[in-house]
Amino acid sequence: MAKKIGVVGVGRMGANMALRLKDCGYEVSAIYDINHEIAQKVADSVGAVACGHLDEVTARAEWILTIVTDDRAMNQIFRSSGRSLLKGAKGKVFINCATISPATHIKVEERATKVGASTLEACMASSITQAREGTLYLMCGGRKNTYKKVEPLLKDLSSSMRYIGAAGKASEVKALVNMVMNINTAGLAEGLGLGAALGHDLTMLREVFSQTGANSRVLETDGEDMQLRDHACYFSAGHAAKDSGIALSMAKPTKIALPLAQATYAQYQAMEQAGLADLDKSGIAELTFPGRGPKKAKTKKAPQKKR
Amino acid sequence: MAKKIGVVGVGRMGANMALRLKDCGYEVSAIYDINHEIAQKVADSVGAVACGHLDEVTARAEWILTIVTDDRAMNQIFRSSGRSLLKGAKGKVFINCATISPATHIKVEERATKVGASTLEACMASSITQAREGTLYLMCGGRKNTYKKVEPLLKDLSSSMRYIGAAGKASEVKALVNMVMNINTAGLAEGLGLGAALGHDLTMLREVFSQTGANSRVLETDGEDMQLRDHACYFSAGHAAKDSGIALSMAKPTKIALPLAQATYAQYQAMEQAGLADLDKSGIAELTFPGRGPKKAKTKKAPQKKR
Repeated sequence: MAKKIGVVGVGRMGANMALRLKDCGYEVSAIYDINHEIAQKVADSVGAVACGHLDEVTARAEWILTIVTDDRAMNQIFRSSGRSLLKGAKGKVFINCATISPATHIKVEERATKVGASTLEACMASSITQAREGTLYLMCGGRKNTYKKVEPLLKDLSSSMRYIGAAGKASEVKALVNMVMNINTAGLAEGLGLGAALGHDLTMLREVFSQTGANSRVLETDGEDMQLRDHACYFSAGHAAKDSGIALSMAKPTKIALPLAQATYAQYQAMEQAGLADLDKSGIAELTFPGRGPKKAKTKKAPQKKR
Repeated sequence: MAKKIGVVGVGRMGANMALRLKDCGYEVSAIYDINHEIAQKVADSVGAVACGHLDEVTARAEWILTIVTDDRAMNQIFRSSGRSLLKGAKGKVFINCATISPATHIKVEERATKVGASTLEACMASSITQAREGTLYLMCGGRKNTYKKVEPLLKDLSSSMRYIGAAGKASEVKALVNMVMNINTAGLAEGLGLGAALGHDLTMLREVFSQTGANSRVLETDGEDMQLRDHACYFSAGHAAKDSGIALSMAKPTKIALPLAQATYAQYQAMEQAGLADLDKSGIAELTFPGRGPKKAKTKKAPQKKR
């Protein structure tokens, strides 16, 4: 039952998931990250080997979690040739946790199937604390028997999980979640920003919002941060832009009109263009609060630092 | 302490508030509505006189609640000349509950002050059931001593209330609440509409939304209605358009950019133009769900019924 575990991509999410699995008694045997220094640090903390090449992870582990940045990175680690994760991957199981496009999940499943490996998408609708504590919300897509096989491990990582359907289906749901979350976040930033401009006490305003039809999860998670201008990153504006973009790509063939999602995407793209992509998604308040924002920062007297 | 109460504007909200006050033991003495038939019906149910002119309400009551449609109606009932509510209004208190623009509240207060009457805005962030049960959420603006004077009556109408500030300030907050609520509603309709187009089970999708960053009050109140296409009206699309419009007007002098509020306003205006203004605000799903919407209804073979 207890398999050797590999982890590819040990940013804040991946590193905390590795720690959690170690705590649960798993043998975390192999770690990989494009930043080798980070890989070494995480490997040391869980007693694993920091691998110099992806195929070493495949050789050293049986179940391999991947938590990479985007479609490009996902295509890279699962490329069909060279020392990718797919080299020598027969019988291995890949659990892919990054929020990427449904099409990439489908393509990765096809490539893995060709070499006799299995894949499961396990999309996470939670953040760093939940990764560390094993209380993630997981949405899974892929073959049902693969899901059943790795279910005990997924349970150790999550407080709630569900099987959504075939490959690509879980990431569709994840993209829909983030599309709606981003809209609500952008909308909240407008409500609080206008409230501030009109001279209202924002603590009062947030309390009123919380007790009325304006209430939302992002009001709880981001409202105070917007007020206090505390944009330490849990989920970056850059990721928000990426995920809204994925949702809009999914929508294209359906011809469903999504003006709010479009407007939200434009706002998060504006943050990227202003060099604010690394702020938390709550940083969208920079675009709507009086006296804040990139324009304010870019004065002639004090030119903005290069990021 | 117990004053004679008048109620002007007995649509669904006003009528239920009149019934609630009667239940609480108030003497509801005078009712007015531009639709005299409705006024008579409500007057009969609470043992009041259905007045033919506004100044009769002022003559027959001491505290007068107004719950009218919009700024135009508000200006009409509080016009400076003729048989308006202001005729013979010295010493009377007007409690104005409609969601109208802050500027109109300020204007009405000025006019009332000139004739020796008091006004209070008591903006409601709730719906018909809450009106009937006396569990409204009230936000009040105006002079503090007026608020203190009518506080016992407001308590009988509400489960929660707060004094926000001077005239216009409570309706600003109300407009902000509805602006954000409308954005969240429009965003939810996009998420569920795209989910439907991609073939997802919407009951599953709503449950996932409810457990993640996509959660919101409107998901609770409107999500299932969107899925089931049940748009019986609690808060109409027409009112949603009006309130988003008020918020955008408030924003103009502040120069705060509100792209989401703009996109939402455009959606609710599109509903009005398509003859869907009388649907509940959840009816915005008609614009985003596959196979729904005004275009679908307007076929050449079966021309749409005149509303």
